[in-house]
Amino acid sequence: MYIPKIYKSEDEILMKSIINENGFALLISNKTHKILASHSMFLWNESEVPFLETHISRANPQAKTIKNGDEVLCDFLGAHSYISSSWYDHKNVSTWNYEAVQIYGKIELMNNDELYNHLDKLTAKYENSQKCPMLVEKMGKDYVENEMRGAFGIKIYPTEIDISQKLSQNRKEADYQNIILNLEQSPQENEKQIAEKMKKIREYNFF
Amino acid sequence: MYIPKIYKSEDEILMKSIINENGFALLISNKTHKILASHSMFLWNESEVPFLETHISRANPQAKTIKNGDEVLCDFLGAHSYISSSWYDHKNVSTWNYEAVQIYGKIELMNNDELYNHLDKLTAKYENSQKCPMLVEKMGKDYVENEMRGAFGIKIYPTEIDISQKLSQNRKEADYQNIILNLEQSPQENEKQIAEKMKKIREYNFF
Repeated sequence: MYIPKIYKSEDEILMKSIINENGFALLISNKTHKILASHSMFLWNESEVPFLETHISRANPQAKTIKNGDEVLCDFLGAHSYISSSWYDHKNVSTWNYEAVQIYGKIELMNNDELYNHLDKLTAKYENSQKCPMLVEKMGKDYVENEMRGAFGIKIYPTEIDISQKLSQNRKEADYQNIILNLEQSPQENEKQIAEKMKKIREYNFF
Repeated sequence: MYIPKIYKSEDEILMKSIINENGFALLISNKTHKILASHSMFLWNESEVPFLETHISRANPQAKTIKNGDEVLCDFLGAHSYISSSWYDHKNVSTWNYEAVQIYGKIELMNNDELYNHLDKLTAKYENSQKCPMLVEKMGKDYVENEMRGAFGIKIYPTEIDISQKLSQNRKEADYQNIILNLEQSPQENEKQIAEKMKKIREYNFF
């Protein structure tokens, strides 16, 4: 992912929040001539050597090509929104604001215990807010282990982390504030989110 | 993208609507050892031989590796939502519903006229709904041609189109309706969208 310097972030907290809030992301590999990409559910594992974890179906052809040590790319697109140049006080081209994380990393296939723990954490992440959470412990170990037979668990140890935060940092104050005003008036969640993020980084840079 | 038969669509109208509504998508190439992927704005061009069109910055390293005839993958993720198995009337694992289009295609680099037309259409698509649209004709040809010097225009002629519509088609009626009810109660746009899509395909399959 090409990131001009002004949009490049090194903020690990931002990275983790983009991954956490956009955990349904893209696993891309190119072990065969053909690029393969699967939408799957990711978690960031904050161990001593942190890594990403995800799983895909064993029936997925990508599972048959991925081996220990392969390098893959994981793409997490965060909030994003069209930015109209009609909101600036001068002639310009329009653009798109967005936050994104791309992580290149080396594959390590999960063993059964790791896959069990992965599914346990993933389920807890999304089920804890449900009225009657269907947690792994409620499903029972035998049931989960049976389901696991169809799942291909993957750990990804980062070799390169790219964090992009393209939020109109190149705009002067009047245009910047006008972009925020326009985005706040939108009925779209993504646009409101970008407005919030723009307000936050401007504060952060000022104080 | 692995698509079990029950979720596989051949519906070209659906494909075009996913591309149109999720035009900020991912251009993935693997010409070098490293996979490269850029978030960029796509249009579907409905010519006699239809193709995708997009542009990235000339400063983007991906622009330096992409040549005529290369195969790339374009990934469009549509509406998507976590589906809690706590909404079913029996024990099961949770999942994620989503619509997505992946298009493999061969690159043809745009000439200047094609890039001008691409930017003209792209701007019109997003500017026509603005209060004071900043259209290409308003910017003036000289201005646009100057801006074009930083843009790398790409046409992608499809060699394979994969349309995934994973909307709980494998669920029995009571669970299906309960998923819709739960998604409709969510404050999240994406979840409401998935509920709408689930209602629509069930109607479509019934009548």
